[in-house]
Amino acid sequence: MGKVTATYLVHDKKGNLDKKAEGIALGLTVGSWTDLPLLEQEQLRKHKGVVESVVELERDDEADRFLGNQRTRGLLKISYPSANFSNDIPAILTTVFGKLSLDGEIKLIDLEFDKQLESSFPGPKYGISGIREILGVHNRPLVMSIFKGVLGKDLSFFKQQLYEQSLGGVDLVKDDEILFDNPLTPFEDRIKAAKEVLQQAEDRTGEKTLYAVNLTGRTSDLRDKARRAADLGANALLFNVLSYGPDVLQELAEDKEIPLPIMAHPALSGAIGSSSLYGIGYSVLLGKLLRYAGADLVLFPSPYGSVALDRDETLNIAEALTTENIALKKSFPVPSAGIHPGLTPVLFNDFGLDSVINAGGGIHGHPDGAAGGARAFRQAVDAAVIGEDLENYAEKHPELQKALELWGGVPVT
Amino acid sequence: MGKVTATYLVHDKKGNLDKKAEGIALGLTVGSWTDLPLLEQEQLRKHKGVVESVVELERDDEADRFLGNQRTRGLLKISYPSANFSNDIPAILTTVFGKLSLDGEIKLIDLEFDKQLESSFPGPKYGISGIREILGVHNRPLVMSIFKGVLGKDLSFFKQQLYEQSLGGVDLVKDDEILFDNPLTPFEDRIKAAKEVLQQAEDRTGEKTLYAVNLTGRTSDLRDKARRAADLGANALLFNVLSYGPDVLQELAEDKEIPLPIMAHPALSGAIGSSSLYGIGYSVLLGKLLRYAGADLVLFPSPYGSVALDRDETLNIAEALTTENIALKKSFPVPSAGIHPGLTPVLFNDFGLDSVINAGGGIHGHPDGAAGGARAFRQAVDAAVIGEDLENYAEKHPELQKALELWGGVPVT
Repeated sequence: MGKVTATYLVHDKKGNLDKKAEGIALGLTVGSWTDLPLLEQEQLRKHKGVVESVVELERDDEADRFLGNQRTRGLLKISYPSANFSNDIPAILTTVFGKLSLDGEIKLIDLEFDKQLESSFPGPKYGISGIREILGVHNRPLVMSIFKGVLGKDLSFFKQQLYEQSLGGVDLVKDDEILFDNPLTPFEDRIKAAKEVLQQAEDRTGEKTLYAVNLTGRTSDLRDKARRAADLGANALLFNVLSYGPDVLQELAEDKEIPLPIMAHPALSGAIGSSSLYGIGYSVLLGKLLRYAGADLVLFPSPYGSVALDRDETLNIAEALTTENIALKKSFPVPSAGIHPGLTPVLFNDFGLDSVINAGGGIHGHPDGAAGGARAFRQAVDAAVIGEDLENYAEKHPELQKALELWGGVPVT
Repeated sequence: MGKVTATYLVHDKKGNLDKKAEGIALGLTVGSWTDLPLLEQEQLRKHKGVVESVVELERDDEADRFLGNQRTRGLLKISYPSANFSNDIPAILTTVFGKLSLDGEIKLIDLEFDKQLESSFPGPKYGISGIREILGVHNRPLVMSIFKGVLGKDLSFFKQQLYEQSLGGVDLVKDDEILFDNPLTPFEDRIKAAKEVLQQAEDRTGEKTLYAVNLTGRTSDLRDKARRAADLGANALLFNVLSYGPDVLQELAEDKEIPLPIMAHPALSGAIGSSSLYGIGYSVLLGKLLRYAGADLVLFPSPYGSVALDRDETLNIAEALTTENIALKKSFPVPSAGIHPGLTPVLFNDFGLDSVINAGGGIHGHPDGAAGGARAFRQAVDAAVIGEDLENYAEKHPELQKALELWGGVPVT
């Protein structure tokens, strides 16, 4: 029988973690246990939550002071039988962290699906291997860029920006996540324009670029809109998954008539993942859940920009997206925000070959414009892959040289 | 031109709140401003975010210590033109708190839709007045109860529990939010059984009871499932809105073929609302957003149970659900968790006539069973409405007497 196992970090008031764990295991399943007649226990056994482990952690004086009293910190690992829920993310989240999310200082920091449960999820339709196949790029991290300042501009501006980015050699270009349906650059027009522009660029460079169009609007319209996008020649979707819900992503990923890689944006995720005391850990929220639900690429703040996550946290997200322990295709980790070419060796060191280097200002702010910025990133990636020092490599690569002069280099420590 | 105005509580590292606010207003809209040519400023003016106000608050030493350095606390109020987004909650949330949610210590604590934007949202289909109309109950708070321990039990158990609760006089009974599709008590069978049982009870008591069946499963199946529920004679829906997404609720509320009140459950809301530093405030998350999206009733932890919210926070949720400032039907506030009859005067004092007193253990744990528990609550409500002391009233009302003996009374302070 399948099960899902949740790990919680608690800062508990009462000090008895075993009792707390048992209370959760029962409270979120059969309600009570020891006072039940034996016959009823027999009937309910397959529904009962099980405390898998309880580990007390060191006290955190700063947290205690902040919370106003002394707490017992610990990790509680509890499993819930699949017999209790339908195999969908809303049911699983409601089971493991529904009312429990309201129960004081508790954070869901891990979620393990057993193999049976895992097999009922689609995972990415393309994943890392499928996207590499589409692009024909196998031996380096991908390079991605973001449109800048499209809000309020028309389609000619959009086309110009897309052309320059793709000409410089980026593998993917994404819409700004705050670009919605609008009269100046409508969804379908962006797709048609992008198809034309990217073909022109490919004719010149011989390289493919994918454009991820922002899939937005009312929930029940998304599927048809995505199918229509595919018909019009779109080649990727950007999706603000947490503004909708992970199950909406999963339905898009499962739809055979939407043959497009899906790029999940972390918009809103900070509202759930930022606190050390409450919420859901990023490796679950942006890692496992999005891989199960079928994101082909997942953006998250890198440890290095102005909007940054803790380095370990980003490594855990990437690990969840790529671990072999999950028998689904792998999702591309896309550490983002405040990335410039000088950070490439550090990002490569952290996230490896199977990651995407993603930049906005670090592409558009290049002295030679977006095309120059893209070239600088491609050069930086090439240097990182062959293990050559960026400064040395820049001597023969003028775009990288200019980028390093502007933004500096960052040594791998 | 319409706009949405967001208020953020920040604990800022850099200390210049005006600059921070301006950075947000630009960063989440047109990107940059002062360095734009005048002509471009003219083009983009209608898309530019506007800083409405900046208020510096007192330092919070505990928070500073917890965060490891000194912060400037403040409230930033910023408005975003409707021209930037489509009129749906995913677009609005992505705009006002998408990437911003990841930007350090920032919490979205208020969200105001102007009248034009507000008018594009449905609000509750029934609301407080509509539900009172259905029930024929106008001059007291409603009483609601929750099934207990249905997981792993069959339909006869379900029917027995429902009969007892309704016989005692509760106005509403809700499924446990962790009851999903399952072979013992399938969705459609529960609806059919409830219809029969509630009719039997009504024949005896002359009073109506609504049963809120838990609407679960895959997102795109919900609409048909809800329509089918209505066809089968369901009279209310329970919905784990945050496990799906507010827009999914809105689509159910807007659907004319789903003529059923919708009860929103706060499952998962603690992951977003608990922190004082991050996330989204409950009055937005469980208050305004759910009213705009169309919840007829909204459950949230009362200030008084084992799982409790801060009292002011609960009052703010209730205010958002019922304020006349929003020109949509009002949603019933349902303060929940750990409620027993002795708390009724306090709840009445806090939440008034237009609220729902909701109990699980406080109904089922009554010495005379669920029917006795329900009667005790109805008696407590009657006492509260006429302003009679609960202890006095209990002298002539034995079920209330027994409840007070078991759980005690709680004075209004």
